[in-house]
Amino acid sequence: MYKVYGDLQSGNCYKIKLLMSYLEIEHEWLHVDILAGETHSDEFKKMNPNTRIPVLVLNDGSTLTESNAILNFLAAGTEFLPADHFLRAQVLQWQFFEQYSHEPYIATARYINKYLGMPIERRAEFDEKQAGGHKALAVMEQRLTKADFLVGDALTIADISLYAYTHVAHEGGFDLGSYAAIERWIRRIEQHSNYFAMNG
Amino acid sequence: MYKVYGDLQSGNCYKIKLLMSYLEIEHEWLHVDILAGETHSDEFKKMNPNTRIPVLVLNDGSTLTESNAILNFLAAGTEFLPADHFLRAQVLQWQFFEQYSHEPYIATARYINKYLGMPIERRAEFDEKQAGGHKALAVMEQRLTKADFLVGDALTIADISLYAYTHVAHEGGFDLGSYAAIERWIRRIEQHSNYFAMNG
Repeated sequence: MYKVYGDLQSGNCYKIKLLMSYLEIEHEWLHVDILAGETHSDEFKKMNPNTRIPVLVLNDGSTLTESNAILNFLAAGTEFLPADHFLRAQVLQWQFFEQYSHEPYIATARYINKYLGMPIERRAEFDEKQAGGHKALAVMEQRLTKADFLVGDALTIADISLYAYTHVAHEGGFDLGSYAAIERWIRRIEQHSNYFAMNG
Repeated sequence: MYKVYGDLQSGNCYKIKLLMSYLEIEHEWLHVDILAGETHSDEFKKMNPNTRIPVLVLNDGSTLTESNAILNFLAAGTEFLPADHFLRAQVLQWQFFEQYSHEPYIATARYINKYLGMPIERRAEFDEKQAGGHKALAVMEQRLTKADFLVGDALTIADISLYAYTHVAHEGGFDLGSYAAIERWIRRIEQHSNYFAMNG
């Protein structure tokens, strides 16, 4: 049985939980407290020297890190990862977009606000994250006004990746009210059978 | 024939050129001047609303963005992308590591120094990038002291992704002198047949 080390309130970890729920993959979830420094223990660093969650542990003890790499591994051969070569590349396109152009703004602003309680010394950084976050949301909105999902015409792990932090973007100060297509897409994902909410 | 919009001095673009050279893929390279704002033109935004290079254009006019998604697309079915399911996930693991934990430090420090000429108002940001860059290099060094390549035992697109900015890390202020395994790995990549240097 798979083991997952993670924190459900982290979008990067929640992505894995959501896909595992959709696919009904049995697993053991081991909570990691990042604020208590648990990703910096010697034991944790053996699993991931980059000191980040999530980490997937396979039956043979081998490990995989990076949320989107884990999603691709688990989704291979399922309806959540298209067989078509070009569509699969488009899934990756959206996932790399997520890690470079979306997460560093929206997730970081949310982290400063929700995890750290908006300390005064990080307020300027929080404010600076807003423009980049809205740019990322606008790119998503442009696609989702033309299509129901980010890639092809069905729910894929690209949607799961972007959904994770987008649906809680308000916790980072981002009002989704002006992104009607994103809001419809959020509802679509939440109506899919076996959906698992971030708050359980 | 493929078209690639990019700037060879950008590691993200150079990755594509290097793989295309290794694989002898015919293509037309169209230079884009980011400092002149060319990625913000209406015409460019039709290809990539996220206003970034590189962009790959296929024969039918469809486009693909995000350097590592493009690498996966072009390498599918070749020696540079393992057929094994778990090894392929490890390739992605390193590529997501590159975009989240390596590029934002090493490439950004290099950009401030090499592209912008180290303007005084970005000196503090340059300095702040050093710790994160060294952390990423240490993670690579740990793997490369135990193995010749990042994944499995042969050169893959994971190596190409990380090589792009690592081999010019000194331009971002990172001395590779204390990373002996990385230096040997760099030589290994440069000795592979059909290697193409960033400076042509």
